[in-house]
Amino acid sequence: MFKTFSIRTNYRTDLIEITDTVYGFLKECKVQEGICVVYVPHTTAGLFINENADPDVVFDVKNFLERLVPWVGDYRHTEGNASAHIKSILTGNSLTIPIQNGRLSLGRWQGIFFAEFDGPRERKFYIKVLKG
Amino acid sequence: MFKTFSIRTNYRTDLIEITDTVYGFLKECKVQEGICVVYVPHTTAGLFINENADPDVVFDVKNFLERLVPWVGDYRHTEGNASAHIKSILTGNSLTIPIQNGRLSLGRWQGIFFAEFDGPRERKFYIKVLKG
Amino acid sequence: MFKTFSIRTNYRTDLIEITDTVYGFLKECKVQEGICVVYVPHTTAGLFINENADPDVVFDVKNFLERLVPWVGDYRHTEGNASAHIKSILTGNSLTIPIQNGRLSLGRWQGIFFAEFDGPRERKFYIKVLKG
Repeated sequence: MFKTFSIRTNYRTDLIEITDTVYGFLKECKVQEGICVVYVPHTTAGLFINENADPDVVFDVKNFLERLVPWVGDYRHTEGNASAHIKSILTGNSLTIPIQNGRLSLGRWQGIFFAEFDGPRERKFYIKVLKG
Repeated sequence: MFKTFSIRTNYRTDLIEITDTVYGFLKECKVQEGICVVYVPHTTAGLFINENADPDVVFDVKNFLERLVPWVGDYRHTEGNASAHIKSILTGNSLTIPIQNGRLSLGRWQGIFFAEFDGPRERKFYIKVLKG
Repeated sequence: MFKTFSIRTNYRTDLIEITDTVYGFLKECKVQEGICVVYVPHTTAGLFINENADPDVVFDVKNFLERLVPWVGDYRHTEGNASAHIKSILTGNSLTIPIQNGRLSLGRWQGIFFAEFDGPRERKFYIKVLKG
C-alpha cells in the first residue's frame, strides 16, 4: 500500500507534524504487523521523529540547524539554498517505523515531522506500508 | 516478528553496543532473507552503526556531539534536555539492515549502538524482522 | 533479492552517485511494489540522497562536512580517521526507498550518493529489494 500526500509549508524553515496523516493511512491499510516507510522526494526538505508535546523542542531544533548551517555562507551552489540541501542530508529524507497490533511503534512523546528547509512551497511525501 | 528490549543506561551520554541482542533475536526468528529494523521509541535517545573494535571511536563520537550540541546553551525548552532532543535527530532513531543467509549484513567492523543522550535511565528499543 | 556491489573511490572524501546502479538492479528484480534498501557495510563511509543536477550542491555538502568535522582535531582514535567515523554517523549508512509501479520513488532532482570519507579505497555496498 502506497499513497502520495500533499503538504503546504508556510515558512523558509517549517517543521510540521504529520503523525495524524500517517496514522490515518495506516487505518485505511488495515495492516496489523509490518513496517511503515515515510519518504520525502525533495532535496531541500527532510523528515524526523521527535517530541510533539512542547513546541519549544521543535523551536530549538530549528534554531540549532539555522546556526549550524546558516542560510548565507560560503556556498558555491548559485540557487542560494545550499543550506537547505545540507539540512536535508543531516535529518534524512526517510523514516522506517515498525507496525505492531495495527499501531505504529511510536513512543509516548514521539511525533513524525515533515521538515521544510526552503519554503514556503507545496510539497509531497509518500507513505508506504509493508505487511510482514 | 517483533520484540521489545529493555536497556539500562548509566551516564547522561551513554553509547552502548547492542549488536549481540539484535543477533540473538535474529536467531530466534530463523529468518534467512529479509530486513531487520531496530527502533528507539524515545525522543532523547537514538541509534547508530559504527566501529566497535576501538572504544576510542565511540569516545570521539560522544565528544564531537557534546561540543556540537552543548548541554547548556541558548535553548527555549525548559526541561533542560534540548541538547538530547537535537542529538537524537542527528543520529536518527531507527536502523534498517538487510538479512542475508540468516545473518545481518553488518560489515566486519560494524556494531549497532544504542545512543543515550539524557541518562541515566531505563530505556527500550524494538527489533522488527521482516521476511522477504 | 540481494546483491553486493563494488565501488572504487578516488579521494579522501568522495561523493559518488550510484542511482543508475540501484535502478539497474531494480530492473533485474522485476519488482513492481515494495521497498529498496541500500546499505554500506563500512564505518568510515555513508549514504545520502540529494540533488544530482548541479555538482555544486555536492561540493557544498563536502565542504560543510569537512569544516564541521575537521580531519585533524582533538580525537583519541589513533588511526587518524576519527573524522570519517563521525561523518559516517551524521549521514547514516542505510537508505530505504519505496518502489511503486516498478520505479524508485525518487523525486525529480534526487540522486543516491555513496559517501566516502576515508578514501581512496575499494568499497562495497549492498542493495536489498523487498516485495510487498
